[in-house]
Amino acid sequence: MPRPFDLTLYLVTDPLQTAARGLLRTVEEAVAGGVTLVQLRDPHAKGRDLAEQARGLVALLRPRGIPLIVNDRIDVALAADADGVHLGQDDLAPADARAMLGPERIVGLSVGTLDELAASDLAAVDYVGTGPVRATGTKTDAGAAIGVAGFAALRPHLPVPVVGIGGIDLSLAAAVIRSGADGIAVVSAICAAPDARTAARRLREEIAAARI
Amino acid sequence: MPRPFDLTLYLVTDPLQTAARGLLRTVEEAVAGGVTLVQLRDPHAKGRDLAEQARGLVALLRPRGIPLIVNDRIDVALAADADGVHLGQDDLAPADARAMLGPERIVGLSVGTLDELAASDLAAVDYVGTGPVRATGTKTDAGAAIGVAGFAALRPHLPVPVVGIGGIDLSLAAAVIRSGADGIAVVSAICAAPDARTAARRLREEIAAARI
Repeated sequence: MPRPFDLTLYLVTDPLQTAARGLLRTVEEAVAGGVTLVQLRDPHAKGRDLAEQARGLVALLRPRGIPLIVNDRIDVALAADADGVHLGQDDLAPADARAMLGPERIVGLSVGTLDELAASDLAAVDYVGTGPVRATGTKTDAGAAIGVAGFAALRPHLPVPVVGIGGIDLSLAAAVIRSGADGIAVVSAICAAPDARTAARRLREEIAAARI
Repeated sequence: MPRPFDLTLYLVTDPLQTAARGLLRTVEEAVAGGVTLVQLRDPHAKGRDLAEQARGLVALLRPRGIPLIVNDRIDVALAADADGVHLGQDDLAPADARAMLGPERIVGLSVGTLDELAASDLAAVDYVGTGPVRATGTKTDAGAAIGVAGFAALRPHLPVPVVGIGGIDLSLAAAVIRSGADGIAVVSAICAAPDARTAARRLREEIAAARI
């Protein structure tokens, strides 16, 4: 059984968008505003730098009860004692991650299409990230946007908790939740907001209203 | 204690230089010619592709008694059951690698200057790669060339086996060995050679002659 985690408002960090305010300060404000899970994503960072960032985030987040997920690098997650990893379809397979991370750490997987679902072994997966709901400039290697309708169509096929991702902002959050998402993942909607705390708080309110 | 390994002729693979002949065929020929250790290096490959390459190499090399080292990615090395990792100064720290890999797998570290040596914890390191002996186009993020003289000056400060690396070809191999190297690491001298097996055999002969 993995450690408890809450997909409600899942922050994925971006090195450029957090550069001005600083990674730790951005995440601290976002968590104060209601972020429930944090993924460190910095695909061009070298291992030592990424591990240092992850250690800083673990020190910030663990006392607040917020898990830290590391994108792609299982070794960095282990070195920094993070709570799990998020894997794309081109990253190491979930079963490999599970073998290294043990039963308690969290393994997430990106699944954007039925073909990707058919190619995925979900036995080792604790949650799925599905999208991109809307086209986004943050993750240039993401597939074509599937839209809220595409998300809603894929959701029933996924037997695990699912977070919607990709271009989700305040205007889309409620629709994604009503389409069966257990939460929404955002990058720009928080990292690029002038006030990360307020941005997170408004997203939480929007999600809460959509769940009623 | 790490698994036994022999630094005499250490092949570092390059995805472009092995593309025409194929990675496995290049390595197979190189080992037939006398390569004693192989490092899989493909810094732009994603994890799943890199693990697949590593699994193919392990299947080829283990029956031949040749260890496979994976560059940078400790998680890929574990997933593919490779024999160890080679770390740069910007990769995860050797102690982190050792904690994940256990006492038997091989941990190598790049050390090119006295400053890098001072910043390195060699307690977890089984061998060091020192260079670049000569400027090379293969690894664009390597430091300035230190020359054979620079290698010879650094070697006595390194309390572990050392392999010279960076632009070493048949014309330089003997000088590097006579400067105290336990072996030489090559990329282009084998991967870009028209006949990888003959290239490896000639390098072995040159090394053997220099050791007399």
